[in-house]
Amino acid sequence: MAGEVAIVGAGQSRFGVLKEGIKSLFAQAFFECLDSVDKGMDPRQVQEAFVGSMSFGGGQLGNLAALMTEQVGLTHIPARKVENACASSSYALRDAWFALHSGMLDVVLVAGVEKMTDLPSDRRRYWLGVSGDTEWERLAGTTFAGLYALMASRHMHEYGTKRESLAQVAVKNHRYASHNPKAHFQRPIKLEQVLEAPMLAQPLTLYDSCPVSDGASALLLTRAELAKSFTDSPVYIQASSGASDFLALHDREDITRVDGTVKAAKEAYRQAHLSPGEVDMAEIHDAFTIGEIMALEDLGFCSKGQGGVWTLEGRTEIGGDIAVNTSGGLKAKGHPLGATGAGQVVEVFKQLRSEAEKARQVSGAEVALTHNVGGSGATVAVHIFSR
Amino acid sequence: MAGEVAIVGAGQSRFGVLKEGIKSLFAQAFFECLDSVDKGMDPRQVQEAFVGSMSFGGGQLGNLAALMTEQVGLTHIPARKVENACASSSYALRDAWFALHSGMLDVVLVAGVEKMTDLPSDRRRYWLGVSGDTEWERLAGTTFAGLYALMASRHMHEYGTKRESLAQVAVKNHRYASHNPKAHFQRPIKLEQVLEAPMLAQPLTLYDSCPVSDGASALLLTRAELAKSFTDSPVYIQASSGASDFLALHDREDITRVDGTVKAAKEAYRQAHLSPGEVDMAEIHDAFTIGEIMALEDLGFCSKGQGGVWTLEGRTEIGGDIAVNTSGGLKAKGHPLGATGAGQVVEVFKQLRSEAEKARQVSGAEVALTHNVGGSGATVAVHIFSR
Repeated sequence: MAGEVAIVGAGQSRFGVLKEGIKSLFAQAFFECLDSVDKGMDPRQVQEAFVGSMSFGGGQLGNLAALMTEQVGLTHIPARKVENACASSSYALRDAWFALHSGMLDVVLVAGVEKMTDLPSDRRRYWLGVSGDTEWERLAGTTFAGLYALMASRHMHEYGTKRESLAQVAVKNHRYASHNPKAHFQRPIKLEQVLEAPMLAQPLTLYDSCPVSDGASALLLTRAELAKSFTDSPVYIQASSGASDFLALHDREDITRVDGTVKAAKEAYRQAHLSPGEVDMAEIHDAFTIGEIMALEDLGFCSKGQGGVWTLEGRTEIGGDIAVNTSGGLKAKGHPLGATGAGQVVEVFKQLRSEAEKARQVSGAEVALTHNVGGSGATVAVHIFSR
Repeated sequence: MAGEVAIVGAGQSRFGVLKEGIKSLFAQAFFECLDSVDKGMDPRQVQEAFVGSMSFGGGQLGNLAALMTEQVGLTHIPARKVENACASSSYALRDAWFALHSGMLDVVLVAGVEKMTDLPSDRRRYWLGVSGDTEWERLAGTTFAGLYALMASRHMHEYGTKRESLAQVAVKNHRYASHNPKAHFQRPIKLEQVLEAPMLAQPLTLYDSCPVSDGASALLLTRAELAKSFTDSPVYIQASSGASDFLALHDREDITRVDGTVKAAKEAYRQAHLSPGEVDMAEIHDAFTIGEIMALEDLGFCSKGQGGVWTLEGRTEIGGDIAVNTSGGLKAKGHPLGATGAGQVVEVFKQLRSEAEKARQVSGAEVALTHNVGGSGATVAVHIFSR
């Protein structure tokens, strides 16, 4: 089953506080993606589109999949929006993967797009907040930083995870982002800056959090047997899996782990016939720094409770056990909700083809994993890729 | 290819102005659907869920697919929301169809849910309006009734379609709804009532428009070879197709037709190896009465311009050439956006199994078609089913 779907093109807009509107961002990503197809692709070959998005383009534009595809000349093809909070375009990828596996399509577009900075601050808070539990969390005043702060506190209590480990996630990811021209943040930061930044929710400061970003990302997928007609270097999807969890933290058995991640990862390794130790690089959902530490454990890269230690010891850096968030991650590359999941795959596409900027290229990377979360863990998607 | 996916269960809540919240509506539809599986199904057999919805449960609840599946005990399965305006759950069906065709899943849930009447009127107008073109239509003050009024006026001008033909669509569909205990409207109406009702947008009056409804619908799908272990009377999906069109009317070549419908229908007949004349019954997107008349033509049931004549002559009634909207249609059964597409299939499931209420059962129906539109035609899905 594995490896029957290939990625033959990938592109993205810059992520950040951008002046362009949602249509323009989508077009930037789509045309960069189309141009990345080595042997060329006629856009009329694209038969269907799966578009991940959440916030209706600043809250103004609906029927988004039809509108976005219309903008880039893909008029009349079937298109739909997939919305799973911050994991939207990873589920768009999963559904496109099913569609190609069915054998009924040859070429499909997977994309993600979000224009967040147009939203007034109360609407922005609303669009973010609704991804968590509304009745027991959001309407009681809980923020996403607050939810992740609860997880961080418990993780520190249970496993002795140090405050510095969380901060080191931010330091590492800002450093990689400083070498990624598409990243929201372009400057490295120091550990002290994280520790001394304004407090969001104890123990998380401003630098433990991802920013509010605009952006778009796009992928062109084909059935594997057609891939070589588009490029000599396709990237194959070896596994696609997803899982859900309770929205509200209080319903979960243990808030130091995300069961959706544990479950989806297990299924992904089964499909790919791989163990965690065979993964060379991973793009992990680090909306908050504790998210990366927990995911290192839940994805099986290290044992439970060791995510912080691994981070401090540099084992998640290039040259360590596994290179994590070489793009800068959500933390520093940016987090335009619906564009994030497909954006992770843009990084994988570049890395596995050795096309990343030199300072952040993982030498000889052959197997990559993406991990994308919606809400505080209610929705998870895991994908595994190979050259 | 055709017929490899089967529907083995179908259920829905009542459509209407309901006191229940979105979670309760979803649960009603799911459990009625589960109970409808003749030989029984353990909910743990459901491997994945595709949920069509648009308006976030009165605008308050996000991460909707995970939240809804959690409510009915389907915790931890992969679930996603599919949003394509009023065609959301038809695209959820299409994506589930792809997933089952891939051979990687055995049993999936397709559902749709919408809680519209909780929305304050300005937000309701917003959530409806964003499905059309925002920049050239909505923000200029155009309503959906206004858009369909433009189509109706042009159709009357080009083809001599009579005002009474539009009204007769409403009369027919209210009559069928009066025999459907799940329908929003339970009373037949007279032609004069439609003609004399308050004007929405010339020539459409209040009775030419569907109502604002709450509701949920659910379907259980399996690969065809597994269907008989769940029921002796599965309904097979013979075709699934979709197409897009320009959001704004002024970009379309001819506003007396919907090119998305024409294109999707052609592809559906190709997949099913059927001609329009072989379809016994159809659930058609009649958000406004002119929509049913245009779709009769665009789906190939009658020639262009004859939709009104066919309606007045009773050729779209039970016993005529084709039985259209025996459920009552969006017009009278109700139109809870995301629940509408899957709801059309609930009607098909009942009709093809001869389980509809006697006064509206299409005797010996073997082939059925559903037609679901998002916006004023920007998104279309067409499915064909058989016993």
